[in-house]
Amino acid sequence: MSQVLELAALSARSGGGPFAAAIVKGDEIIALEHNSVHIDTDPSAHAEVNVIRKACQILNTIDLSGYEIYSSCEPCPMCFGAVYWAHLSRVYYAANRQEAAACGFDDEQIYHEINLPDNQRSILFQRVDSDEKLIPFKTWDMLENKNQY
Amino acid sequence: MSQVLELAALSARSGGGPFAAAIVKGDEIIALEHNSVHIDTDPSAHAEVNVIRKACQILNTIDLSGYEIYSSCEPCPMCFGAVYWAHLSRVYYAANRQEAAACGFDDEQIYHEINLPDNQRSILFQRVDSDEKLIPFKTWDMLENKNQY
Repeated sequence: MSQVLELAALSARSGGGPFAAAIVKGDEIIALEHNSVHIDTDPSAHAEVNVIRKACQILNTIDLSGYEIYSSCEPCPMCFGAVYWAHLSRVYYAANRQEAAACGFDDEQIYHEINLPDNQRSILFQRVDSDEKLIPFKTWDMLENKNQY
Repeated sequence: MSQVLELAALSARSGGGPFAAAIVKGDEIIALEHNSVHIDTDPSAHAEVNVIRKACQILNTIDLSGYEIYSSCEPCPMCFGAVYWAHLSRVYYAANRQEAAACGFDDEQIYHEINLPDNQRSILFQRVDSDEKLIPFKTWDMLENKNQY
């Protein structure tokens, strides 16, 4: 965790956000990345998403079962989702979401809004009814060899 | 939305997941992408994340205020977070999370687990106490010209 926190501070000083994360198995660090949202003009380039992407490239798999992630900060909902989709085995974090919010990072608000009904969010969500809405899933269901997610 | 659903079905038939999304302003489609998790070996490569990344590259900004997203399916928590970080103005979706779950995509479970305490999740979260945990944020706070997120 001290290497992760060191990279997070270095990131803050060099154009990234003040966040970093590592994917680890036992004593081995597979990947170590920092937030690069502004560097890459990519709002999804949080430390956890970056390090998951990197580890998946290195290991040539989307399944990180058996690997653990160390993050300088409690993952936001986007990174929380990425951790689940990557099937990581455990998450260690240092600062929490309230400490991130105190520094101006809105994780706490997003955690709040995710539980609101569609029409009560600050970004309105609206379901569009369409006769074709299930066609992608029906197409998928008919495949013989489905990829696992 | 019909273009989005058409691409989602095409994606299912060609190695992607059965999902697609578009970023739109008025009548103009800025970007249209599909799920490419297996194609790119990247568990974060959902349609919404892909199309947000693409639109940000095209528009050279991380702030998509004033733009709307059309998704073939209700965004999962990862994509929900990406929508908020990109500051999109509105979200339209066709299928919902229950319909995704019925097709084997665990969005519904992740929505459930995000509200559980750290130690009751299927992926355990654990806070690591460290004297250095706030150093990245303090480093950030001292910057004169902070990037906005």
